[in-house]
Amino acid sequence: MGYKVAVVGATGMVGQEMLKVLEERNFPVDEIRPLASARSKGKKVLFKGAEVEVEELTADAFDGLDFALFSAGAGVSREFSPIAAQKGVVVIDNSSAFRMDPEVPLVVPEVNPEDAKKHKGIIANPNCSTIQMVVVLKPLADRYGIRRVVVSTYQSVSGWGKEAVDQLWNELEFIMDKCPRASAEQLKDEIRSAGLRQVLAHPIAFNVLPHIDVFADENYTKEEWKMINETKKIMHLPDILVTPTCVRVPVLKAHSEAVNVELKSDFGSIEEVRRLLSSSPGITVLDDVEKTVYPLALDVAGLDDVFIGRVRRDLTLPYGLNMWIVADNLRKGAALNAVQIAELLIS
Amino acid sequence: MGYKVAVVGATGMVGQEMLKVLEERNFPVDEIRPLASARSKGKKVLFKGAEVEVEELTADAFDGLDFALFSAGAGVSREFSPIAAQKGVVVIDNSSAFRMDPEVPLVVPEVNPEDAKKHKGIIANPNCSTIQMVVVLKPLADRYGIRRVVVSTYQSVSGWGKEAVDQLWNELEFIMDKCPRASAEQLKDEIRSAGLRQVLAHPIAFNVLPHIDVFADENYTKEEWKMINETKKIMHLPDILVTPTCVRVPVLKAHSEAVNVELKSDFGSIEEVRRLLSSSPGITVLDDVEKTVYPLALDVAGLDDVFIGRVRRDLTLPYGLNMWIVADNLRKGAALNAVQIAELLIS
Repeated sequence: MGYKVAVVGATGMVGQEMLKVLEERNFPVDEIRPLASARSKGKKVLFKGAEVEVEELTADAFDGLDFALFSAGAGVSREFSPIAAQKGVVVIDNSSAFRMDPEVPLVVPEVNPEDAKKHKGIIANPNCSTIQMVVVLKPLADRYGIRRVVVSTYQSVSGWGKEAVDQLWNELEFIMDKCPRASAEQLKDEIRSAGLRQVLAHPIAFNVLPHIDVFADENYTKEEWKMINETKKIMHLPDILVTPTCVRVPVLKAHSEAVNVELKSDFGSIEEVRRLLSSSPGITVLDDVEKTVYPLALDVAGLDDVFIGRVRRDLTLPYGLNMWIVADNLRKGAALNAVQIAELLIS
Repeated sequence: MGYKVAVVGATGMVGQEMLKVLEERNFPVDEIRPLASARSKGKKVLFKGAEVEVEELTADAFDGLDFALFSAGAGVSREFSPIAAQKGVVVIDNSSAFRMDPEVPLVVPEVNPEDAKKHKGIIANPNCSTIQMVVVLKPLADRYGIRRVVVSTYQSVSGWGKEAVDQLWNELEFIMDKCPRASAEQLKDEIRSAGLRQVLAHPIAFNVLPHIDVFADENYTKEEWKMINETKKIMHLPDILVTPTCVRVPVLKAHSEAVNVELKSDFGSIEEVRRLLSSSPGITVLDDVEKTVYPLALDVAGLDDVFIGRVRRDLTLPYGLNMWIVADNLRKGAALNAVQIAELLIS
């Protein structure tokens, strides 16, 4: 009574996490089919304690499947998602290929589960930094209304993929070997002249980069545009105003966000806001500053919820809030959200 | 024709930078007198190629001086600044002790140089994260007016002092030795159980902490209150609205800030804003996203200016801007600003 499920991009960071999440949540899998490019063909991945051989991604590879979870880049999704869908496979696509397509639902199960059922074969999984924000914005919008959001992100290297994680480790290894405890001035020279492989635009060790994905209209990055546009679509709020700055930090896993929200009506007390968020799905409130309790990227790696802390009144607005939102970008920001969408469809 | 200058806290990170800046800028020093606690008495510091012995900080130590640059914590400043001032020494104090005292000018030379001359013996040097922001806000406020600022910071460990720098290096050394290339999940366990000395509230390697200085009213940190209150005082704009979130990142030196500004009037084009900022004192515009040019913490360590990039229209406001502001927190954020104040007084 189970399902036949493909994971496309099974050897990538998100693909690996998808296999892990399907297993952990006991998604009813009859057959798992890890797919990847010809280069990875024959590699083994682990699923429920067994080694499963990676097959090459071809049109035929989708025959007989129920679900295909895609996380192999927008190009692969654009080519193979429609093929899979035509064969009757439900595609849940983690790339940006179809997110803004009006025919494709963009779903965060805590926010717009009803959209999932309206799919025509493809459902899009939103961008990681958007998912964790809308999980928190949803209960606030329902209760108080939201006019405007100013968000600054602190995003981990795993959001870019394995090679950015390697870049950070390579830089740190180089520094600890060549110039441990160097001054900031020395460090800059050493690391800039080391000639290490660089997939991000600049070194990331001991640095923060205000640059995620490529630059687009109005000198916003695509990552910033995703936060603006995807938020409107997921929340069904075409008028919600979002102004983001997306920044990469030397963290392995989990994105953090400083979020300023202008509400449309009075929220009473901060305690009331905390209670509302605590009782909302997918959220854990960690907010006891006297005990230095607030969510931390280091601590939430591997956890499922969206974590929120430092909930404070914005003293410059009649109804404003400042908050700190942290989630594992590979889980809730990608793999977990995709599996939750599949769960919605079989429930 | 020179001056007799004491540096109080001469062995600390800011004190060291003060000595370096006095030397580099050829401040007319006849006598340098490094002062510190009894513990550091007899240590040597370097000034203009010569070793100078550190003297113990006592009331007598200020006899015959013209200037005393303090950077030894608020407690030391509260005790010794009035003593020095009473002896006719002009105190430039980098601590938070007197910043909000209505009798004490709080000065950023590019913003309110005229206030320096009104001192009664003590001039306060503002908080690092405030200084770099107001240098940029000043020309915008003069030309367009500013209604509200939302700021998220990415502050380096050196802002806390030497021990926080040590904490970051210790954690990195531990990780590279004990569990190099660990997963984020392993890393958390290893680092949380390592028992390393921790002066920040939590581990900082591979992490970001939404917590700088202690918590105060409304669950804002003191660092956040400094950005709110000092900005009003320095800019002589009691009504300017500032809502900050201050965050520590694993960077050695230089603070970065994502700053959203609501202006009161039309700024024309982004190009016009860039031109205005380029021609304003103490600012370097680095803003060519096509060539991945924007200011980076790694690169500005040791440099004097406030660097600005990613200047973009905030599409959610009639007259709004987003910007990325980076400066060396020990130089413009502390030592350089203090020496510039002294320069104002002798000019």
